[in-house]
Amino acid sequence: MRQIQVKEFQILPGDFRENTLKLRKLLDECRACEEETEILFEEGVYHFYPDYAEEKLLYISNHDEDTIKKIAFDLTGCRNLTLRGNKTEFRFHTDILPFYIHSCENVTVEGITIDFQRTGYSEAVIRELEPKRMVMEINKEEYPYEILHGRLFFRGENFFCEMTHGCLEMDAERMAPVYMGHDISFNRPYSWSYGAVFKELSEGLVEVTLMGDREFLKTSKVGNHLILRHHARTHPAFYVIYSKNTVLRDIMLYHCTGMAVIAQFDENLTMERFDIRIHPVKKRVFTVTADGFHCIYCKGQILIKDCFLENQLDDPVNIHGIYGRIHKVLSDSEVLVELVEGMQKGVPLGKSGETFGVINNETMLDVSAEVLAEHKMLNRDYQYMRFAKPVKGLQEGFVVENKDYAPDVLVEGCTFQNNRARGLLLTSAGEVIVRDNTFRSAGAAILIEGDSNYWFESGATKSILLEKNRFIDCAYVPDWGEAPIQVSPSAKKYEDGVRYHKYLEIRDNDFYCFDDRLVSAQNIEEICMYGNRIHKTDSFEPIPGEKMKLEGVLRVTDQPHR
Amino acid sequence: MRQIQVKEFQILPGDFRENTLKLRKLLDECRACEEETEILFEEGVYHFYPDYAEEKLLYISNHDEDTIKKIAFDLTGCRNLTLRGNKTEFRFHTDILPFYIHSCENVTVEGITIDFQRTGYSEAVIRELEPKRMVMEINKEEYPYEILHGRLFFRGENFFCEMTHGCLEMDAERMAPVYMGHDISFNRPYSWSYGAVFKELSEGLVEVTLMGDREFLKTSKVGNHLILRHHARTHPAFYVIYSKNTVLRDIMLYHCTGMAVIAQFDENLTMERFDIRIHPVKKRVFTVTADGFHCIYCKGQILIKDCFLENQLDDPVNIHGIYGRIHKVLSDSEVLVELVEGMQKGVPLGKSGETFGVINNETMLDVSAEVLAEHKMLNRDYQYMRFAKPVKGLQEGFVVENKDYAPDVLVEGCTFQNNRARGLLLTSAGEVIVRDNTFRSAGAAILIEGDSNYWFESGATKSILLEKNRFIDCAYVPDWGEAPIQVSPSAKKYEDGVRYHKYLEIRDNDFYCFDDRLVSAQNIEEICMYGNRIHKTDSFEPIPGEKMKLEGVLRVTDQPHR
Repeated sequence: MRQIQVKEFQILPGDFRENTLKLRKLLDECRACEEETEILFEEGVYHFYPDYAEEKLLYISNHDEDTIKKIAFDLTGCRNLTLRGNKTEFRFHTDILPFYIHSCENVTVEGITIDFQRTGYSEAVIRELEPKRMVMEINKEEYPYEILHGRLFFRGENFFCEMTHGCLEMDAERMAPVYMGHDISFNRPYSWSYGAVFKELSEGLVEVTLMGDREFLKTSKVGNHLILRHHARTHPAFYVIYSKNTVLRDIMLYHCTGMAVIAQFDENLTMERFDIRIHPVKKRVFTVTADGFHCIYCKGQILIKDCFLENQLDDPVNIHGIYGRIHKVLSDSEVLVELVEGMQKGVPLGKSGETFGVINNETMLDVSAEVLAEHKMLNRDYQYMRFAKPVKGLQEGFVVENKDYAPDVLVEGCTFQNNRARGLLLTSAGEVIVRDNTFRSAGAAILIEGDSNYWFESGATKSILLEKNRFIDCAYVPDWGEAPIQVSPSAKKYEDGVRYHKYLEIRDNDFYCFDDRLVSAQNIEEICMYGNRIHKTDSFEPIPGEKMKLEGVLRVTDQPHR
Repeated sequence: MRQIQVKEFQILPGDFRENTLKLRKLLDECRACEEETEILFEEGVYHFYPDYAEEKLLYISNHDEDTIKKIAFDLTGCRNLTLRGNKTEFRFHTDILPFYIHSCENVTVEGITIDFQRTGYSEAVIRELEPKRMVMEINKEEYPYEILHGRLFFRGENFFCEMTHGCLEMDAERMAPVYMGHDISFNRPYSWSYGAVFKELSEGLVEVTLMGDREFLKTSKVGNHLILRHHARTHPAFYVIYSKNTVLRDIMLYHCTGMAVIAQFDENLTMERFDIRIHPVKKRVFTVTADGFHCIYCKGQILIKDCFLENQLDDPVNIHGIYGRIHKVLSDSEVLVELVEGMQKGVPLGKSGETFGVINNETMLDVSAEVLAEHKMLNRDYQYMRFAKPVKGLQEGFVVENKDYAPDVLVEGCTFQNNRARGLLLTSAGEVIVRDNTFRSAGAAILIEGDSNYWFESGATKSILLEKNRFIDCAYVPDWGEAPIQVSPSAKKYEDGVRYHKYLEIRDNDFYCFDDRLVSAQNIEEICMYGNRIHKTDSFEPIPGEKMKLEGVLRVTDQPHR
């Protein structure tokens, strides 16, 4: 095994713009080498700037902007490579994608702390509050801003963005989303966004005055923190695609301008002791600006073990496929398929030889399964598919789903807390086990969806086991969930005796609840529950709702299948 | 010779989204065919939508947004191909690049009228005017808009853009830029932009109120037209690159969201009877949203003959190279070169085997000329260059210029009128002849620049002849020019007996002038003038200035070199 100390390539701890350039040389060598290789970083803070970085056109799913992006660690084509830190921090400078793991095999990244010099979001504290007027305090050194023409702009290292993406209020004591709160935004080009005029009262004190008859939320409070979203969701920390056996271990991530990990079409992916935490010194109330671990069309095993995720701006885990909508039936074996959801654009849904389900978009049940004989991207919106033989029932509006990607999932020993939105979004037809985790989720802790008409996230599940987890005061923001456990595929039409989801087992969990709600489920064949303990808390005012809200569920049992 | 009627491919006149898809099939066949081919369009209006269009990552010089763009006619790799219309109009739908002529040889496009269904800009008429308040009338059917949070947005077929790019006032009687006017903009993120609040008074009547102590221009007038710029400069009508012997003939272009033609690294390019005109029915006061014909690093001959260009939003002709700035000297034969100007990003400055000048950025004079041995794009900002042998005098801040691209230029029999900005921008080291044209330019009709510190447009000229042209009331907007003929390279440091530009001959022209100004010139060795006629007009109030304003000009003669 070959070991490379990065200092051999003059990559040094410290604030050096040239590190990125030298890294390209090092990685080119690794790419060309078949031997097992370890790249070793010493203790220290290594800076990586976009200036000399590799630049590639990336259609990153569930992120904004399908365009060229700069990349620090472009591991494309690497095999048998471990990148290891030792009390090592990587400090990135916007805009840059820290890790691009493309067509790799047996790549491990471990022992690295990741942060950004200037975050893509900023933060404020509410100092004064009236129905139509707020004064917020902003640390201008940490979050430099300017007000021009009554508009609030934030300045970064390579950006100058108006604050229109949104604003989320966080409870000052709990450092978590406000109970019964809502997402709001200022001056977005929609009528439901809050029109607002900004004015600097003094250095770091900004007055916000609402236009028209809009008022601030009743849930707002002086002293609370505001997460000011002014950067698009552009750069995850890890973009893993078409790779096998990727391991991300002992990672500490404080911030990036996207998801922690977005994985597409990967086989076997491990996140172990991968933490997303509030920065211990900066104490920012936000971590990453979108989801934690988001896996699209993966297979093999997804292992999420002993991770701690908090305060990110979207769900900690989301595992699903993509439904492509049949836009045109060209012949009895040829279709034009459309990617409808804006963030999914440009994702090829598969390749020839893979099996696709053709699915009725109303019942979301399979009509047939066919082998793809030819595939071609027309552009980011449309892809051409030819099936190996004529298909009965091809119909515009129906959807297709790649059936070759249904990973087994094990989520174990993790904590998920205080983030915006939900907890685990699990829609994989593989064996899914969620064991011994702690949830403090503002929305549903477990959400099992599937939607063929709006978000186009697939697919139908077969077996999900939730055991020995602790669900603590979850679902306190109704916008993000109806109950701690929620099953809610979008299909509202059922066929006799068949449901979209199959089997959910909930056993030996501890539920700490401030009201009655436990499960809200639709369109699933069987829910099996036993051995769970319910503990009453008085953390929040109760939210109305029954313990078990069921609709279109065929069976509720206490006899497990296994 | 093969002739193809497009209807053989089911491409039909009419509003059909499928035309673009069928066109791809047709062009794929042409690409594969070596035989000389004519593609024939019948009379009628053919619509081309972006939906099924080819999509490519394009770094179009002097345009915004280096990203993926949809393309209607992707002629990449075509040879010996003529595309011919017969009373044929192509109606494009935003956002789409009509023609991409890449790595082509002997491609001719002729007999086509081009327009867009919904223009990228909109138009208004000033109905009321006070120092801080204006009421403008907008044809809401033609230019659909919405006002949200006091901001003005325009809706297009695939866009919804705030009107912040700028606003140009056009004289209602002359349908030309206002005498002594200025470009203004509303709510751009700069302090010098006008803060403004918009309000709809009634259907199609919009009130604009200025914030702070700003007032509307003194030159503004009720009844004048406003060109409202709300679309980035993204899609030229023709993008011609790495091609040889391209002919664009009998083209009538009414609109596109960029330049009419942007050409990069082409050999022999002809624009003949290529008109850019005000739409005869719509009577929009604007045509294309940027320059007419813009040629960067071309060679062979550029022929612009019998063209009529009016009311575009930037210069009708601009011919130049690009200076790359030496960012880092890596060794005595290796440099990192930076593209500084935002719109030039991503343009490779040449390839190995080509000769580069190394140029002192202060004097703008050549230090040496070297053969490029290796070239590599690091990203859109930086490129690596290795010269064949060690170079003396490599210095950070110096610039490099590709010397293999210096086209001869003939501009003959054309009319250039009423556009924003200047007339012909001519900086080619080839033989440049401008003969028998009519200019009604708001700025300088002829501008010979070169700049190595700000715009980075090269280069030094050797011989320019202006003969038998008519310059009619030019240079009435001082922001865009000092005199009808202007020579103004940016270098202010001279070496003894040497100048940046060499020889400008001005003979047998007719100047119709409303004041004394004729020529303003710096940093040129010789100006030769004879046989010109000056006619006094009273079209505008005189603007102060001398007939010949010279600085650093070595000789003014009346004895031609040829």
